[in-house]
Amino acid sequence: MKTDMTRYLPILTWGRTYNRTALSNDLVAALIVTIMLIPQSLAYALLAGLPAEAGLYASIVPIMLYAVFGTSRALAVGPVAVVSLMTAAALSNIVEQGTMGYAVAALSLAALSGAILLAMGLFRLGFIANFLSHPVIAGFITASGIIIAASQLKHILGISAEGHNLLELVISLTEHLGETNWITAIIGILATGFLFWVRRGLKPLLKRFGLPDGVTGVFVKTGPVVVVVATTAAVWGLGLADKGVSIVGEVPQSLPPLTLPSFSPDLLWQLLLPAFLISIIGFVESISVAQTLAAKKRQRIDPDQELIGLGAANIGASLTGGFPVTGGFSRSVVNFDAGAETPAAGAFTAIGLAIAALALTPLIYFLPKATLAATIIVAVLSLVDFSILKRSWNYSKADFAAVLATILLTLTLGVEAGVSAGVGLSILLHLYKSSKPHIAEVGQVPGTEHFRNILRHDVITDPSIVTLRVDESLYFANARYLEDKIQNRVAKDKDIRHVILQCAAINEIDLSALESLEAINERLKEMDVKLHLSEVKGPVMDRLKREHFLSEMTGQVFLSQFEATKALRPALPT
Amino acid sequence: MKTDMTRYLPILTWGRTYNRTALSNDLVAALIVTIMLIPQSLAYALLAGLPAEAGLYASIVPIMLYAVFGTSRALAVGPVAVVSLMTAAALSNIVEQGTMGYAVAALSLAALSGAILLAMGLFRLGFIANFLSHPVIAGFITASGIIIAASQLKHILGISAEGHNLLELVISLTEHLGETNWITAIIGILATGFLFWVRRGLKPLLKRFGLPDGVTGVFVKTGPVVVVVATTAAVWGLGLADKGVSIVGEVPQSLPPLTLPSFSPDLLWQLLLPAFLISIIGFVESISVAQTLAAKKRQRIDPDQELIGLGAANIGASLTGGFPVTGGFSRSVVNFDAGAETPAAGAFTAIGLAIAALALTPLIYFLPKATLAATIIVAVLSLVDFSILKRSWNYSKADFAAVLATILLTLTLGVEAGVSAGVGLSILLHLYKSSKPHIAEVGQVPGTEHFRNILRHDVITDPSIVTLRVDESLYFANARYLEDKIQNRVAKDKDIRHVILQCAAINEIDLSALESLEAINERLKEMDVKLHLSEVKGPVMDRLKREHFLSEMTGQVFLSQFEATKALRPALPT
Repeated sequence: MKTDMTRYLPILTWGRTYNRTALSNDLVAALIVTIMLIPQSLAYALLAGLPAEAGLYASIVPIMLYAVFGTSRALAVGPVAVVSLMTAAALSNIVEQGTMGYAVAALSLAALSGAILLAMGLFRLGFIANFLSHPVIAGFITASGIIIAASQLKHILGISAEGHNLLELVISLTEHLGETNWITAIIGILATGFLFWVRRGLKPLLKRFGLPDGVTGVFVKTGPVVVVVATTAAVWGLGLADKGVSIVGEVPQSLPPLTLPSFSPDLLWQLLLPAFLISIIGFVESISVAQTLAAKKRQRIDPDQELIGLGAANIGASLTGGFPVTGGFSRSVVNFDAGAETPAAGAFTAIGLAIAALALTPLIYFLPKATLAATIIVAVLSLVDFSILKRSWNYSKADFAAVLATILLTLTLGVEAGVSAGVGLSILLHLYKSSKPHIAEVGQVPGTEHFRNILRHDVITDPSIVTLRVDESLYFANARYLEDKIQNRVAKDKDIRHVILQCAAINEIDLSALESLEAINERLKEMDVKLHLSEVKGPVMDRLKREHFLSEMTGQVFLSQFEATKALRPALPT
Repeated sequence: MKTDMTRYLPILTWGRTYNRTALSNDLVAALIVTIMLIPQSLAYALLAGLPAEAGLYASIVPIMLYAVFGTSRALAVGPVAVVSLMTAAALSNIVEQGTMGYAVAALSLAALSGAILLAMGLFRLGFIANFLSHPVIAGFITASGIIIAASQLKHILGISAEGHNLLELVISLTEHLGETNWITAIIGILATGFLFWVRRGLKPLLKRFGLPDGVTGVFVKTGPVVVVVATTAAVWGLGLADKGVSIVGEVPQSLPPLTLPSFSPDLLWQLLLPAFLISIIGFVESISVAQTLAAKKRQRIDPDQELIGLGAANIGASLTGGFPVTGGFSRSVVNFDAGAETPAAGAFTAIGLAIAALALTPLIYFLPKATLAATIIVAVLSLVDFSILKRSWNYSKADFAAVLATILLTLTLGVEAGVSAGVGLSILLHLYKSSKPHIAEVGQVPGTEHFRNILRHDVITDPSIVTLRVDESLYFANARYLEDKIQNRVAKDKDIRHVILQCAAINEIDLSALESLEAINERLKEMDVKLHLSEVKGPVMDRLKREHFLSEMTGQVFLSQFEATKALRPALPT
């Protein structure tokens, strides 16, 4: 048994066995991740509508806090694309981008999201995240990727455009297309093309030279750094900033500042739903990465503790000039591939980024925004994957409907409407499916003790006995359906004297279903028909025994369907 | 097969075989119900905040329309207590009581509710009503009964008081207690006492005289008529109206007027949620009465057609000066007990009430409102039943939580908040329960082919094999739970080489769960553990075959758990 202390502070577990090998592996991984994170952090801050340095700040203290409280050994926490988009969507409805209020609202959003995650972890409410079905997430990520890519086109073209869904963005981009700055566009298109080539073309090339997979992976991930250096040098050397190329400009040389989120009740109330959605989406993304990486080393992830780790990270972001963060897929994979052994690698990455924030920011003065936009576009387009539509169509129309609604509403109305509709529709469709459970009328397979659907098999039945097998737990959503089904079956056939419910697939009977069974029993009694049960599971039987129903039931409970038929139809050959 | 025409017009079915016996039975029933309905209709109009005559109007055309479209032979449609309370609660938030706008808003509420019911019937969406669990309804009816009784105390005491939940009512009553009109109070208390005695004391008395059950029932139901006549005579004879006793006053002598609801989009939008709740609650109340009465005569009820019948009745109410109506419990039971054979009884009742509206209204000029309040109080207190709290506590804590929340929120915040919270909580608790399904690790019972929980039975297991039995369908809400469970079980035990999922209780695997199984398979592969399935149901297997999962799975699918163990552990004695 773990003590409470080690449960809530996983660092106590791995910290105790930390040694020199782990230290050197962690240091190498941290160096690689740091280099990769610098352009990514700046870019995601821009995507969230914040100054570039906020991206660095959001990557320093949150990583350290996650190292203390998180259970994944390889997860890298910081700004990620989808959460940054959701941040921009949430804030731009409330405050104007570029104002001081906007940055403060971002801090509040991170604080609120952190508080929600912490509360969910402490009260073990992680199950709430389960209501996001996989297809809904896949649809949401795909649609978000498209919106993010579209939102970055303005930087590539050097124009201004507004919008938080695809419709708005397309309209706004078309209106401003004439204002395109051609130098910016050339930089942007070249950078995008180069980054695509690094992903698609460089990897096979390096492999042909015989480099191992891990090394080529690291090379590919440093592509953004190369583009950043090259385009910054070009803008500086050729004086392109004077020709209308938009640059990052002055970034303060500073460690993350101490900041305080706003506690205005009005603001917090407006941010509550977005913060909740950001928390859930961030948690789901983070936990699936963590689980995948942990499995590779036979390690365990504790979802409730992960909530605490991510909650602490977001609180940290809100106190140090950041914005909502979560465990990112690409950075975590790099961290893992580069050999990170413990969360200490994260702490070292944080130190690396702190040094960058202190010393390297003057170097990115001339970094064109088009370059950052290019890194974002190339990163998010790998998230876009419409195959979920085909897959869900083949597998289940209900899942397909949920995916389609999520994608369409996210694209047309925005991220919050899209994900809310997806979750709502998934739940509704699930309730709908289980509200009309499969109920088969069964008969005996000749010469056996087995009972099968009378519509599909050649089976023995008796005109005085109806046996129904319900393939679902009985609860409020389907209780009345069973009432209707039985009443309609019995009312039209005056020969029936016994109704047997075969309960082998019933895992639960809630109070509504129990009351329905009572009503069925009463109504059958009025028609002079007896109600019997067969093959009731142990836990269900235990619960039924707490109530009067069994003593009021006109018929009996049989251990097996075969026994029931034998008892009620004595003439049957056994 | 029924044609579409007879499906949507049940009157064509029973009308064809209508004969003289049915006619005379229906006429007797109609006479009894008409007498009982007059005071009840006036009282419920008052409860809804409308002039007394609206209650008569709401009972005439709606009954006739239900007779044409409804499938129940005995259901009596008209104003009922809970729906009248919900009407008052919905309208008083929007318009002031006693104004013309209030009456028009009541028409709009009925029209909207009718449209919702019709749409649900035509699109076969009756399943939506299933989301109201029995315990939530029981709790809601109990709490509503208390609020209704409290809301009538002002009429009993002759004071004015406002409020749509118990808190507001108690505060308002306390403030105005000093203004009590003692003559009104005496009439009110005597009337209430008499009606209670009729219910509790008269029935046993009549039985002692040897009267049959049916006849005593009818006597008891005419109690309100006796009180109405007696108190009206007293007020008229003693001139009590001049001494501050509040009376019904002038009621127009008229057939139901032709009216039009307002189609103002603002108003309709504000009424949408209340109309939806009224529709659902009304439908649930009505259908359970209809089912109970139909069972007594082995008749069938078609829930979708019932929605159409109730929808038509409400549209009718909105066009003839009424307010929302539904099938009432007490009036339907009286109708049935009095021998009604077909919906024609309802039509005759409508004619009786039309005659009353035309000819008898001057007679109720001096009817004290305290008398109507007394009939309401006595009627609704029979709905109040807290035993559901004890019952649900014993049977299931989840159901208990839903009931308690419904009762407390209805009493403190009002009917809409109460019923919404009850429904929301039921769904949430159901999802929560099924999001953490019972997963048992099983082993072989020695000498048999049966497998049982290792924690409860002395069973044979093998250190290299883990068999898990999941007692629930796999879908998005529990897919991730299974991932966690398996990862945690396998990560801590390096001897494991095989994981078998026994799928006998799994009725469905949705796309989320399939993707979870894929993730489980991949992660187990990383740990060098094989995943197998056993006892997969036919429909589940059919669906799995549409996807690649089975070919990617590291292990096999076994028909039975016994075969699985035999194949994976060849040394086992068979």
